[in-house]
Amino acid sequence: MTSPRQQKWRQAIADTFIQKMPFNQLLGIELVDYSATGVSLKLAMREELIGNPVHGILHGGVTATILDVAGGMTAAAAAVQRMEHLSSKELSQRLSKTGTIDLRIDYLRPGVGELFFASAEVIRSGNKVTVTRMELHNQAGTHIAFGTGTYLVG
Amino acid sequence: MTSPRQQKWRQAIADTFIQKMPFNQLLGIELVDYSATGVSLKLAMREELIGNPVHGILHGGVTATILDVAGGMTAAAAAVQRMEHLSSKELSQRLSKTGTIDLRIDYLRPGVGELFFASAEVIRSGNKVTVTRMELHNQAGTHIAFGTGTYLVG
Amino acid sequence: MTSPRQQKWRQAIADTFIQKMPFNQLLGIELVDYSATGVSLKLAMREELIGNPVHGILHGGVTATILDVAGGMTAAAAAVQRMEHLSSKELSQRLSKTGTIDLRIDYLRPGVGELFFASAEVIRSGNKVTVTRMELHNQAGTHIAFGTGTYLVG
Amino acid sequence: MTSPRQQKWRQAIADTFIQKMPFNQLLGIELVDYSATGVSLKLAMREELIGNPVHGILHGGVTATILDVAGGMTAAAAAVQRMEHLSSKELSQRLSKTGTIDLRIDYLRPGVGELFFASAEVIRSGNKVTVTRMELHNQAGTHIAFGTGTYLVG
Repeated sequence: MTSPRQQKWRQAIADTFIQKMPFNQLLGIELVDYSATGVSLKLAMREELIGNPVHGILHGGVTATILDVAGGMTAAAAAVQRMEHLSSKELSQRLSKTGTIDLRIDYLRPGVGELFFASAEVIRSGNKVTVTRMELHNQAGTHIAFGTGTYLVG
Repeated sequence: MTSPRQQKWRQAIADTFIQKMPFNQLLGIELVDYSATGVSLKLAMREELIGNPVHGILHGGVTATILDVAGGMTAAAAAVQRMEHLSSKELSQRLSKTGTIDLRIDYLRPGVGELFFASAEVIRSGNKVTVTRMELHNQAGTHIAFGTGTYLVG
Repeated sequence: MTSPRQQKWRQAIADTFIQKMPFNQLLGIELVDYSATGVSLKLAMREELIGNPVHGILHGGVTATILDVAGGMTAAAAAVQRMEHLSSKELSQRLSKTGTIDLRIDYLRPGVGELFFASAEVIRSGNKVTVTRMELHNQAGTHIAFGTGTYLVG
Repeated sequence: MTSPRQQKWRQAIADTFIQKMPFNQLLGIELVDYSATGVSLKLAMREELIGNPVHGILHGGVTATILDVAGGMTAAAAAVQRMEHLSSKELSQRLSKTGTIDLRIDYLRPGVGELFFASAEVIRSGNKVTVTRMELHNQAGTHIAFGTGTYLVG
């Protein structure tokens, strides 16, 4: 279902989010998988990402960040699929206007772990607004947080 | 309305959030003011906190982080006021169980600026759950984001 | 700041929401005031609107309904102001596509009272999406609930 | 996993929500299934529940109401399972304090249909706070809305 042109666009989007956004670099967010319908991201725990130092728990702001990145990348992939007929210039302009309108994070369990995995999927894809659901798990499969994001696309 | 004992507790809480949480140190969050009913935090823009590199805009995850910190500190201050009759040991135990249940961020305008100020106030204070509203402005007074946080306290 | 044409449009919108939406009629929602920047609605308590029968408390679904109506009317008023240059036909088409994308309600205190007042204001007004904040108070001024709504407009 | 005592409690809770809450009666909410981990509710479309009269679409407030009821009943079932060791008097007192703290509804598609089904499941169950996810579908399986609710229990 996904054309070579779409794949190229996703590569460019991934490059922007993962390589060119300074804060994502500071955290160390890595790409695992990226398709037309969702994304999977990885983050290795380290001292600087801790919120609660007594229990060594991931800061809730890190959780919010990686879930927002997962949601934003997924909204961008959905936009590429929907707007494939546009010229590259138009599509690029539309994508540059992508932004988070609102974000809800539900913190389910303490962010304990060595590796964290964020995933996202589209639950509403419209001409102007895309809504995504996100999840954060650790390397043992423990479900740490849920997210819901509303994104403006183009 | 605020006793010396409450002030001491707030100093200890502020010390924990601002000095001892590694991720807040990584971001550079500073305390401006802290009372029984709210908090004001400050954050200086720098390269590493940027999300959109083309327009030099604060990453939405930084916004979520500082608003969550403001909400959590405000919920803790409300808990101290409500539980002042407890022994220090009990109060300390209760506070150590403070945590974010859920968080909603509304992104109103691009996070452009040199200095950002986060503030929070209590809108529901119960025995178990405190709800706070948060706002982020830049140094020019531009309103960048709203937040709503639900916190478990003790 | 508000032209006669805008006022006429708001009258038409109010007529749609208050007179022509069956569920708003079932609840008995009434209009108090409607301007370019916000709305005020009124609802009289009665037996059928109760959730908790022991304490005679307004059902949380009624709170959600009236706050969503207040937010939607406010988003529509903002759209009228922004799109006043359009022809009546175009504006009408745009308004007919107005819809709630997401809604958050924070229940602060039990909905006890004889009369309830809902108000809303715009906190983000864009070409495609409007975000509003809503509040519910009773006749004594007790603050019962907060709302945040994200609306698609045109 | 579910004891006869738990089943009796759930029957009593269902009776309260479905038979004794006037607003749920006004809407016509019916119980389909109720277990320790979730609930399924049914609602037949009728004229009075319409929001948009042109397209005959369910009012967003009805969606919010039935999803909140589904979430609240599920939170109560989780509380019964967790507090089964309590005396009936204590459990009854705890349950009477159940209430919605906050609710988020994501409207995915227009509420078109003849029958609507709401379901809920627990995603966080704590001593004080339970978080649930809810969904609304129509008789054809179309996914109309998502909900997330945070409930205070006892």
